[in-house]
Amino acid sequence: MPARAVRVNRADAGEAVARLGKTSIRRLRIRRDFSAAPEEKLCRTPVRGYRRAQFFSAMIIPNVNVLSDGQLKEVTDILTAYGCKVMVITGAERCVYAIVGDERNDDMVTKIEGLPYINRVDRIQSPHKLMDIRSSLATHRVKMGGIVLGSEPFFCAGPCTIDPKNPNLTIETAHAVKEAGAHALRGGVWKPRTNPYSYQGDAKALLVLMEASRQTGLPVDTEVMDEEHLRLAIEAGVHCIQVGARNALNYSLLRQIGEAIAGRDVCVLLKRGMHLGTVQEFISAAEYIVQLGNPNVILCPRGTQPTLDGYRNHPDESIVPLLKERTWAPVVVDPSHSVGKAAYVPAASLAAIAYGADGLCIECNVHPGKGIGDDPKQAVTPEVLRRIISQTRELWRIARGA
Amino acid sequence: MPARAVRVNRADAGEAVARLGKTSIRRLRIRRDFSAAPEEKLCRTPVRGYRRAQFFSAMIIPNVNVLSDGQLKEVTDILTAYGCKVMVITGAERCVYAIVGDERNDDMVTKIEGLPYINRVDRIQSPHKLMDIRSSLATHRVKMGGIVLGSEPFFCAGPCTIDPKNPNLTIETAHAVKEAGAHALRGGVWKPRTNPYSYQGDAKALLVLMEASRQTGLPVDTEVMDEEHLRLAIEAGVHCIQVGARNALNYSLLRQIGEAIAGRDVCVLLKRGMHLGTVQEFISAAEYIVQLGNPNVILCPRGTQPTLDGYRNHPDESIVPLLKERTWAPVVVDPSHSVGKAAYVPAASLAAIAYGADGLCIECNVHPGKGIGDDPKQAVTPEVLRRIISQTRELWRIARGA
Amino acid sequence: MPARAVRVNRADAGEAVARLGKTSIRRLRIRRDFSAAPEEKLCRTPVRGYRRAQFFSAMIIPNVNVLSDGQLKEVTDILTAYGCKVMVITGAERCVYAIVGDERNDDMVTKIEGLPYINRVDRIQSPHKLMDIRSSLATHRVKMGGIVLGSEPFFCAGPCTIDPKNPNLTIETAHAVKEAGAHALRGGVWKPRTNPYSYQGDAKALLVLMEASRQTGLPVDTEVMDEEHLRLAIEAGVHCIQVGARNALNYSLLRQIGEAIAGRDVCVLLKRGMHLGTVQEFISAAEYIVQLGNPNVILCPRGTQPTLDGYRNHPDESIVPLLKERTWAPVVVDPSHSVGKAAYVPAASLAAIAYGADGLCIECNVHPGKGIGDDPKQAVTPEVLRRIISQTRELWRIARGA
Amino acid sequence: MPARAVRVNRADAGEAVARLGKTSIRRLRIRRDFSAAPEEKLCRTPVRGYRRAQFFSAMIIPNVNVLSDGQLKEVTDILTAYGCKVMVITGAERCVYAIVGDERNDDMVTKIEGLPYINRVDRIQSPHKLMDIRSSLATHRVKMGGIVLGSEPFFCAGPCTIDPKNPNLTIETAHAVKEAGAHALRGGVWKPRTNPYSYQGDAKALLVLMEASRQTGLPVDTEVMDEEHLRLAIEAGVHCIQVGARNALNYSLLRQIGEAIAGRDVCVLLKRGMHLGTVQEFISAAEYIVQLGNPNVILCPRGTQPTLDGYRNHPDESIVPLLKERTWAPVVVDPSHSVGKAAYVPAASLAAIAYGADGLCIECNVHPGKGIGDDPKQAVTPEVLRRIISQTRELWRIARGA
Repeated sequence: MPARAVRVNRADAGEAVARLGKTSIRRLRIRRDFSAAPEEKLCRTPVRGYRRAQFFSAMIIPNVNVLSDGQLKEVTDILTAYGCKVMVITGAERCVYAIVGDERNDDMVTKIEGLPYINRVDRIQSPHKLMDIRSSLATHRVKMGGIVLGSEPFFCAGPCTIDPKNPNLTIETAHAVKEAGAHALRGGVWKPRTNPYSYQGDAKALLVLMEASRQTGLPVDTEVMDEEHLRLAIEAGVHCIQVGARNALNYSLLRQIGEAIAGRDVCVLLKRGMHLGTVQEFISAAEYIVQLGNPNVILCPRGTQPTLDGYRNHPDESIVPLLKERTWAPVVVDPSHSVGKAAYVPAASLAAIAYGADGLCIECNVHPGKGIGDDPKQAVTPEVLRRIISQTRELWRIARGA
Repeated sequence: MPARAVRVNRADAGEAVARLGKTSIRRLRIRRDFSAAPEEKLCRTPVRGYRRAQFFSAMIIPNVNVLSDGQLKEVTDILTAYGCKVMVITGAERCVYAIVGDERNDDMVTKIEGLPYINRVDRIQSPHKLMDIRSSLATHRVKMGGIVLGSEPFFCAGPCTIDPKNPNLTIETAHAVKEAGAHALRGGVWKPRTNPYSYQGDAKALLVLMEASRQTGLPVDTEVMDEEHLRLAIEAGVHCIQVGARNALNYSLLRQIGEAIAGRDVCVLLKRGMHLGTVQEFISAAEYIVQLGNPNVILCPRGTQPTLDGYRNHPDESIVPLLKERTWAPVVVDPSHSVGKAAYVPAASLAAIAYGADGLCIECNVHPGKGIGDDPKQAVTPEVLRRIISQTRELWRIARGA
Repeated sequence: MPARAVRVNRADAGEAVARLGKTSIRRLRIRRDFSAAPEEKLCRTPVRGYRRAQFFSAMIIPNVNVLSDGQLKEVTDILTAYGCKVMVITGAERCVYAIVGDERNDDMVTKIEGLPYINRVDRIQSPHKLMDIRSSLATHRVKMGGIVLGSEPFFCAGPCTIDPKNPNLTIETAHAVKEAGAHALRGGVWKPRTNPYSYQGDAKALLVLMEASRQTGLPVDTEVMDEEHLRLAIEAGVHCIQVGARNALNYSLLRQIGEAIAGRDVCVLLKRGMHLGTVQEFISAAEYIVQLGNPNVILCPRGTQPTLDGYRNHPDESIVPLLKERTWAPVVVDPSHSVGKAAYVPAASLAAIAYGADGLCIECNVHPGKGIGDDPKQAVTPEVLRRIISQTRELWRIARGA
Repeated sequence: MPARAVRVNRADAGEAVARLGKTSIRRLRIRRDFSAAPEEKLCRTPVRGYRRAQFFSAMIIPNVNVLSDGQLKEVTDILTAYGCKVMVITGAERCVYAIVGDERNDDMVTKIEGLPYINRVDRIQSPHKLMDIRSSLATHRVKMGGIVLGSEPFFCAGPCTIDPKNPNLTIETAHAVKEAGAHALRGGVWKPRTNPYSYQGDAKALLVLMEASRQTGLPVDTEVMDEEHLRLAIEAGVHCIQVGARNALNYSLLRQIGEAIAGRDVCVLLKRGMHLGTVQEFISAAEYIVQLGNPNVILCPRGTQPTLDGYRNHPDESIVPLLKERTWAPVVVDPSHSVGKAAYVPAASLAAIAYGADGLCIECNVHPGKGIGDDPKQAVTPEVLRRIISQTRELWRIARGA
């Protein structure tokens, strides 16, 4: 992984080792330093061939009608320290102040917003250098299971959790979802569980998943929760690494994934977080991965909290058009976690395609009641999956006029 | 870390190694198997000396007025497989069905809830074996900075983020917060940032933090985002490991922390997640840590999303009484992230103590405008901190009638 | 309106008049007394021919494992006063207590829940006597614009707000929506506006609306905000009275509407409230209207707050299956307010039908930019409406397998 | 009510009558026409002596880097039609466009935002002419129960709902709350209930409330839900009209109240709505009332939905500082509905004062278990009220340094 070779500040790392002294440091890694001056930062774009995004403006909104000379000087001094300039916009009875230059330095904005006479800074540019729909990656297409996402509906299906004691259930389900029309197989090896005494997963399930992949030829998707899971999954040959909702803002994990998949033919299915976060926050999480070199990220809404009374979450397939406006990345919706009950999954699947999703990730089991994890509640049978695939294909044709 | 020595299933691990075959596996860890039968699981309690919690009942609520014979048999068969029994409760025109036995097996409940004629299972017991206020840990008290949490108001204060290029700012702030009355020093070494191009932290800051601790004698609290941060922090002698809101449900990290601090004199400050999660989910996250042997966990509400218009989050200090009803763990509120602007912090601090918080974790900087991270917006000055400490001490006396 | 004739407590009203004495009381109305004993209340069902709902059980969940004799007596005394009995359910180590009888008396439940040793009362029955899917109204079908709702997709469309200074815009739009396939015409006469200085509507617009109805033959839907609007609308011959989101829990208005439409061939389009309320609360609001004699209520989800970042609200078409499980009432979704921008309306329309909606209420204008109210942002053109109708009809066929 | 005499557009009303023709119109009221041109609207300020607010700027944020000539013309044409001008602000690579003039015309902004190449309009001014902290009303003080709100803590207390069958309970409670230190008596005559079959209130309770006022000398606060309640309450001499959460955006009722209390010595206690609405929306609701001539409005946060798990609502006393920044109006928090259980009320009361509330509105009953409505769950006893008053007075002194 050559990405690791470019880590900077080795000297500093050595100094840190020296000063930490007596403690035994087995493997000290100092992360890339992002604190460089803005110009410098923009010059060394992280991934070769990606053009840097453009400079935009931001607006400073004061609490007062017009800044006093002293206040204006204080603002100007902060901006100048970050290489930006201020432009005064004089309204009829009130002024606002434009930042000219690259205002994307969070520290600069925080300092301005911290001034007692400033209400806020309105930033109008995208913080996403690579995920942005106007970036040089805009024409990138993600491929999986033999199809280009966006060109036809993509279906990933399989059990919530693979029972390592009952490998046949997964193998049988894998064949069934393939036959029903799925392009990829999902299956949980490790599971984040609210209750620490619930089944937490088992690495042996990984072997079952890969065997299912071998027999069916389907690429597989599985969730990883830490670096060790990631390493095992990559080494086993998992085709798509899933980041779950609870780790959606686990930036260390996102960076570890970005490093691990750089230069590999591996995708990431990035779930949306559980809170009602912004579109920008979701896309920024993907930027963490993509900036390290592999742009094969798929965004996956899966419902948010607080829940819509009666469902497991508040279905959020409606976020798809908002994502599509800002990013080129494909969006694959998970209706199973959104609603949390098998009976509602077909309707939620259609709704996701209605909103423009590029595909679906559905929990499916040949015998839901025999499954572990969420399957007894959430998993549809292969027969239902087949109908979902057929109906959503028809809807795709209608909605996209294809 | 001897905790690692007790990992089970080495034979299975070996088999997994063998089958993964050609891939180079450097360090294969198979997690403790939690899938054992309920009896067995309950017998081997994870931490010596903790009594197991008690058996309670749960109620099965059908969609129909009364289950048919076939339906009742299907329910009974599932319960029996998990060692439970059903008790029919006959109402005037409707029946509900009580589960007698230990219904805490999630798989069993999921299977019952997955039946099409069942509306839901109402579980009425606590899933927290150790965090529960009725557990054998109920008399445990957490100590830090020379005080027993709960006996008098506890104050942790310091910069959001330690600037490794300006160590004096942190050192100076550490002395100032001590003088203002704080019992512990907080300071961010690594920072979770929405924008991947923002400053992400620097291990060198850890040295600054420890130096500040050495000079002032204050124990220190810092956030870790992954196993490497955790290792560095523990090795450097950090007294309190902080889990941030974005990792509040990162169960791998919680378990890594639980393992790392077992047998050590280290506390954990566990932030509440960003979503409006349940009280139970929050306490269950702490159970992940405590079950591994070290019960020194402090719960830290810090505001949730969606935000209250005008703040950074929706302040949630009001959760304190709800936590106190269910768990013995101390609760220390973070007003700084709740409101997100220094001017609002004093009021939010008083409100937290009003709701019964055992302490406060406040961002403070001698020169907020010179700080990095959130300090220019959120950090109060030591003078304000001193006033907060004085006022909240008075309120503590009033509210607790002490 | 014979419903008024049955008002009780005329004597009491007289007494009240006498005691209020010197104040000039022009029209004193004492509302029907709902405080009668449960038996009596259930015997005089409000609308002839509706069967009363059935008796169910509720569960009392204590904070303690078992109630003491004194506590049990206190509970029993409360239940007895309301004609109910308690049944003790003895679990392995904990007891719960079933209420046998009609526990739907809110006062009784509140009293039980107010006891310090009681955690909560879980009520498992429907509070909806008439709206419930199991009530005698379950086979009722609402008709409008020549179709039976539920038998084929229903479309209501028209401008947000009728501009009384530009009646031709509405008239032209009415013809256009009819031609595009709509069954009914919507148009705002009075508008709830956040800003009191914004245009608030004008009764003259009612004349424009009725003229549009006359010319096209379409039934019309318009929002009323108070009793005067209601009277004017009914007298003008409006076919469907709309209750907006801000008045969704304005129970006085709901009752006024219920009284006004009793015995008339008028429908109600009841919007869902702005908060993320429960399904039960939404259906209960409809029960307010239906209990007064006219069951022609249509439920209309329109998005809730907090908003999904980028939309006007958080789209909630996903609530449709949850409503359909509990009530027989038709559900017509308003995608225009959900998303708040015309460009997103076609996708949201498809999603609503995907979730099983019986129809759509869409803002449409031949010249959105010339409209007033929300039209410049939200209204689709008749061409887009025609495409929405065509696509949703196809999806209806696919989703319902018809 | 002379306010009714000044209604405009009598000619139009006559025309409307003529055209509505055959329908019998008993009492046609055409509301004041708010659709006049901006200049005209601003000139006739609704209440004599109030100065109009100032002109500010707003920013138009496009979806593109720079508007084309045609797009700029289209924007300019819309602005010109409303008497505004555009100012181009040229950034490094992107332009934004300032609106110069009074951009508070919602229609103008909606039209701009409806253009497909416009992302949004950022409005930076207050829409509140009279409620704004910078308005000429900023020095107005509300008085009740012998005190000036803001000068010392204000306490309103009493039963949730007055039981007309048990008047002594209310009378006894009134004396007890007065003795405990309350300045005003609250008591529900009419109650908004989710369940239409629950007790809905009784006008006879109004007589009980007024008798309690007469005996104790306390001013009284009661909720009205419609114009009839309002008329009865005003005629009975109620001192403070309460608008409940479900009617918080019932603009017709707000206007009816504004008209009814113009020129009278009556206050309004305006509850915040149930959804997590913006600060501006809350203050705008008050503007509806104040613009009609009586500025005695008190804002009352009472918790929002979605609920904090374990409470009735999500406590929102933290909104107080945000309100205080923007409006001069006093803020009195209702902790009883916020938390929904008596045991939590003392802590919530302290928290409200901690956040700067000017007072509290608390449900109190000498015998909570004998009360109706929410009292058995929510009402504190007079002893608890006395302690709340004592503790919050101490906190007021600490927090305000008085």
